Amino acid sequence: MGEKFEKIIKLALQRGILFPSSEIYANAPSGLFDYGPNGAPIRRKIVDFWRKELVQKENMLEIDGAKILPKDVFEASGHLKNFVDPIVYCKKCGSHFRADKLLESKAEMHISEGTPVEKIKEALDEHKIVCPGCKGPLGEVSRFNMMLGVKLGPKMDSECFLRPEACQSIFLSYMRLFKTMRVKFPFGIAQAGEAFRNEISPRNFIMRGREFQQMECEIFFDPKEIDNVERFSEVEKYKIRVLRQGKDKIEEITAGDLVKKKLVSGKIVAYYMARAQQMYEKMGVPRNAMQYRQLDDDERAFYAKESWDFEVNTDLGWQELFPINYRTDYDLSGHAKGSGKELYGQREDGSKFIPHVLELSIGVDRSLYVVLEHSYKEEKERNYLDMNPRLAPVEIGVLPLMKKDGLADKAREIYETLIDNGFDAYYDHAGSIGKRYARLDEIGCPFMITVDYETLEKGDKKDTVTLRERTSTKQKRVPIKDLPELLWKLLKGIEKF
Amino acid sequence: MGEKFEKIIKLALQRGILFPSSEIYANAPSGLFDYGPNGAPIRRKIVDFWRKELVQKENMLEIDGAKILPKDVFEASGHLKNFVDPIVYCKKCGSHFRADKLLESKAEMHISEGTPVEKIKEALDEHKIVCPGCKGPLGEVSRFNMMLGVKLGPKMDSECFLRPEACQSIFLSYMRLFKTMRVKFPFGIAQAGEAFRNEISPRNFIMRGREFQQMECEIFFDPKEIDNVERFSEVEKYKIRVLRQGKDKIEEITAGDLVKKKLVSGKIVAYYMARAQQMYEKMGVPRNAMQYRQLDDDERAFYAKESWDFEVNTDLGWQELFPINYRTDYDLSGHAKGSGKELYGQREDGSKFIPHVLELSIGVDRSLYVVLEHSYKEEKERNYLDMNPRLAPVEIGVLPLMKKDGLADKAREIYETLIDNGFDAYYDHAGSIGKRYARLDEIGCPFMITVDYETLEKGDKKDTVTLRERTSTKQKRVPIKDLPELLWKLLKGIEKF
Repeated sequence: MGEKFEKIIKLALQRGILFPSSEIYANAPSGLFDYGPNGAPIRRKIVDFWRKELVQKENMLEIDGAKILPKDVFEASGHLKNFVDPIVYCKKCGSHFRADKLLESKAEMHISEGTPVEKIKEALDEHKIVCPGCKGPLGEVSRFNMMLGVKLGPKMDSECFLRPEACQSIFLSYMRLFKTMRVKFPFGIAQAGEAFRNEISPRNFIMRGREFQQMECEIFFDPKEIDNVERFSEVEKYKIRVLRQGKDKIEEITAGDLVKKKLVSGKIVAYYMARAQQMYEKMGVPRNAMQYRQLDDDERAFYAKESWDFEVNTDLGWQELFPINYRTDYDLSGHAKGSGKELYGQREDGSKFIPHVLELSIGVDRSLYVVLEHSYKEEKERNYLDMNPRLAPVEIGVLPLMKKDGLADKAREIYETLIDNGFDAYYDHAGSIGKRYARLDEIGCPFMITVDYETLEKGDKKDTVTLRERTSTKQKRVPIKDLPELLWKLLKGIEKF
Repeated sequence: MGEKFEKIIKLALQRGILFPSSEIYANAPSGLFDYGPNGAPIRRKIVDFWRKELVQKENMLEIDGAKILPKDVFEASGHLKNFVDPIVYCKKCGSHFRADKLLESKAEMHISEGTPVEKIKEALDEHKIVCPGCKGPLGEVSRFNMMLGVKLGPKMDSECFLRPEACQSIFLSYMRLFKTMRVKFPFGIAQAGEAFRNEISPRNFIMRGREFQQMECEIFFDPKEIDNVERFSEVEKYKIRVLRQGKDKIEEITAGDLVKKKLVSGKIVAYYMARAQQMYEKMGVPRNAMQYRQLDDDERAFYAKESWDFEVNTDLGWQELFPINYRTDYDLSGHAKGSGKELYGQREDGSKFIPHVLELSIGVDRSLYVVLEHSYKEEKERNYLDMNPRLAPVEIGVLPLMKKDGLADKAREIYETLIDNGFDAYYDHAGSIGKRYARLDEIGCPFMITVDYETLEKGDKKDTVTLRERTSTKQKRVPIKDLPELLWKLLKGIEKF
């Protein structure tokens, strides 16, 4: 375990996928990353994938809210009080650690949210746990709020926080959207963007960073109508991979059966469990590497009535990509109280209610890692990312065989046409054609075009180019004028290579 | 002046384009906005437009860096010392104001960067300027740093700042990209994303916010080769609209002449002035509403040797969308010194140099406002946004004439096919068809499809739909199976309606 993880990190650093932020500065904080020319597009395309498959197909409203939110919001949301980790410091070297994570890794103990700090200290003492760094004795356990404060205004007296999760903006804009966007329950509001947390021990590369992207869906519904899901029949027979509380094996249970056997609170939960799992299948993550793990009662976040963690098996073990949380009316009630504004939904008969919320809060960076790891392939002659073309940082490489003799000009012309037609193309004329193929293979580019002497010469190959497919490495000759339509069809899967 | 501005704000609030963040909380800070379901996509598509037209066509490397950067970075960049505004407070009501802006609006005085605070105080006294709010007397003038601090780590002792401009990440990752990405000078590194400033008086809606998006290009070049621009001939005869220092009229000068007459430092400046102006023309901003205003020597930012502000004429007067700054080696030299690392470029003969930098630092939110204002059209019967289809929040509205009789099912099927083919489609079955057209017109949706009884009935119109074009309101009958290809061609401008 860890070997493939190391390979992915190496690839990321060497091929402009991602790297530590401010890395030229010796004391740059950890847990912050810059996505490079080949990583930023993958991350963006994962969000696009989610936007198409979940947001648009479910007719959700997608917003993009401010990242700085006032203190009142987090008072009402409960984050000021509850968004805390137990931490402990080493009396000798002064390092800080998550006390719960120490107990988890050293004593296989699970510490639930809200466990008193004294109890945690007792457990640390009982298991004789010392500083993992210098073996020094540990001090007291205290509660540490992970939110990052920011002070606004000329007197710096407007206390704000960077959002620790994307969802609060959704609850805050709910009422305006309900009133102006002609919605009908159930409906979703979605948002993708950064969240910020002062993680004590950022670790595992991008799996736990201090600045990260989330793509969140909050589905608002009438609690009396939790089973009112118009298109439930479309997923009824679809098998969801679940690891239930107290079970030690993954079961494949249809969405219909999850509801019938009352293993979930209602149809809306099973429906979105199915849709999200389908999305990852479509993305190219193998089915047998997925599970929805039902959280124990003491594992759930403070706002959740029912929670399932969607996990993917990786070289680092099972990794959580997102929870599905049934948040009830926790959020809207809290903000109604905090703001003094009425936040409500309305039935067709005019009666009002406080909508309940089902949440899918997906980690973008973690999804990116999973996609990289599961598409990484090694062959004798080459390594490549066997990636869904919709996620590839470059869709089409345009390569003149040589720079000279007008080959580069012709290639450049094709490149511009492809850009104008909306493709993510990449132009490169430097180095041997084999090396250029290899570099594009390594970042998962699905198609490459080569402009050679036959393209320019008289004969039946005039105005044609070689089109190469990444995974099969097969090549065929294609007229230049057919390229936009052909590539569009290949990329959308309408046509096979 | 201001009437159209008010209409745009109203449209933005009522049609889910954008609205004040945390608006349900009475004391939410100003200058923070949430983009709604019809605004978030426009903003995203403006960035996509830039990505296609500037980043990809100029073969730039696009990154997406962390928003939190350590203090050392801003020590080296000069922001800790220089990123300051002169502020003054009212002795009576306690309000704070930008002292330079007060002198600008009340006394038509221009205060240059670095003017001592005592001089500014003298000028305020001399012009007898009082509090614009309560008419109270003004106190001392002081310097106020606009950066927002954030403290990381378990002891909160790692001093960081939210980036006040997107460009620093570019300079910080320069060396890794230079070493790994096989670049040749001149080359650009680009980045789009949020920046954060503690503006004293956020104003004019999204024109000056505290959290805003920028799309930046930093072009790195060998200072000996400032005139080495491979494709300069493509813009040589293109006329750039400039308002030079000391002139009171806009002149149209070709990129070639700007260089020949030494009105710019070199070809690279004129080249990018041309490319950026072309981008806005292509976006749909009228040519006669644009100018590059050359900044006076005392108006330039502290790091700039030459600066032109690209301004667009709006209902609020001429508004700056971005500066083109010639930053010389200011940034790389500063970070080399600050980090102790060698940051350099290399010529083909192996000799090293410190690259110079030309910057285009474009405001995304301001561009969005300009696009909205310049596409807003009023007719007797309707208002609409006559917007470039590439910027429209929805590309295709899919509307069943009625929900019943299988019309909705058919429309839903078409909608899903369009989503699968990569289009930004929107499905709506509620209300009269006229009202649904009107709502889509108002958000600039370029094409709408109606599924009616003829779509389902036997006859020559079976399996066809009505396709309506927004601006002309013309309609025609189109077979369902031709839709993806036809719409793709219409949206890309390959075919006319």
